[in-house]
Amino acid sequence: MRINIIGRGNVGSHLVEALQDKAEVTMVNPHAPQTLDTDADITLIAVSDAAIGEVLAQLPPVAGIVAHASGTTDMSVFDDFGINRDRVGVFYPMQTFTKGKELCYEKIPFFLEAKNKADLEELRELARKISPLVYDADSERRRALHIAAVMSCNFVNHLFAMSEQWLQENGLDFKIMLPLIEETVQKISEISPKQAQTGPAVRKDYETMQRHEQALAAHPEMLEIYRLMSKSIMG
Amino acid sequence: MRINIIGRGNVGSHLVEALQDKAEVTMVNPHAPQTLDTDADITLIAVSDAAIGEVLAQLPPVAGIVAHASGTTDMSVFDDFGINRDRVGVFYPMQTFTKGKELCYEKIPFFLEAKNKADLEELRELARKISPLVYDADSERRRALHIAAVMSCNFVNHLFAMSEQWLQENGLDFKIMLPLIEETVQKISEISPKQAQTGPAVRKDYETMQRHEQALAAHPEMLEIYRLMSKSIMG
Repeated sequence: MRINIIGRGNVGSHLVEALQDKAEVTMVNPHAPQTLDTDADITLIAVSDAAIGEVLAQLPPVAGIVAHASGTTDMSVFDDFGINRDRVGVFYPMQTFTKGKELCYEKIPFFLEAKNKADLEELRELARKISPLVYDADSERRRALHIAAVMSCNFVNHLFAMSEQWLQENGLDFKIMLPLIEETVQKISEISPKQAQTGPAVRKDYETMQRHEQALAAHPEMLEIYRLMSKSIMG
Repeated sequence: MRINIIGRGNVGSHLVEALQDKAEVTMVNPHAPQTLDTDADITLIAVSDAAIGEVLAQLPPVAGIVAHASGTTDMSVFDDFGINRDRVGVFYPMQTFTKGKELCYEKIPFFLEAKNKADLEELRELARKISPLVYDADSERRRALHIAAVMSCNFVNHLFAMSEQWLQENGLDFKIMLPLIEETVQKISEISPKQAQTGPAVRKDYETMQRHEQALAAHPEMLEIYRLMSKSIMG
């Protein structure tokens, strides 16, 4: 398989690495699309949602399937940008990619969509070279997944970052939280998160919550998050 | 060692289980404190913060150390409730306890405090029977830790619960998020959460955030959390 990967950010660079021994990969700088392999079987656009249009506007004529890697962008983006082709699709890896951070590629779930069946099968074949977790998902389903990924990964990580900042200010090391965090995640592979909920809010322990709010008084942003999350847990 | 454990909730029942082969444990119903072993070396009060005072008010005369297991309650609570004794302390296990969910006890960090040195050493000895992660922490430090635990565990779990609800409504299974969640946690054992942040907010991808907000329009509570967390990530 000959693959173009347009985009050298977190997603693009990891896809290149994941595929380098399994396909003939051409890395393409989105600002210099003329380096693209025009005979590629699949051209993947792995850039931020806002930049997809720009890439499409500059895309040289290319054989094969053109697919983007976005969770939230509709497959119809190709029509919107006048890419009048039948062979388009979506190749969305639902994972948190950080450049330089090694990743277990076989744990990336891929959600795929294509305008026609044969291309969907070809995208599946590509995804299976990386991971066994390969699913079909239309644009609406994929957007729902992406929103859940933002909640379960990006927002979760931000809470870790907030904890880290708070502990640092109190002379404590964030690493001390790791056993608790590991158990928090271990639990939800066995029981539903709703059942797994613990802490002052679900116990309606107003005394503890009030003390925490007092302690957070100098951090209006953390306090706002503390209040909103507690309110939401109390239901 | 002879140990009383007052409280049969999530924390109490797990402490009983963790210690049952390692000490002579008496489980005590907080509403029937007369069953308590009055010659115990250590009496642990493992009830919600609001109930500690009630337990102390009814506590029969007892030998040894009396310690509570709360993250946020000051050691001075014993004085506040007229428990005029020198042998008091705190035995705080920083973990998420769910009744019936098996737990790897050696991964529970314990944070200890006592009015006098010999008792601190005795509490350490008890904690070490359960886990190697044994630390000293005064009441202020312990409260800081508890707040970080609420952020890193309780609020994180609530985001998982929100994702679960959202996915269910969209005909998708929450289990599909587990590889992403595992990687989110795996990352922060290697790099700082601040560096690990990914997603539309940190990329300032307003287009994606706007689409997500539109999709969440029918869920005012999720929408409010989405906006606040995104704003906080953007800084």
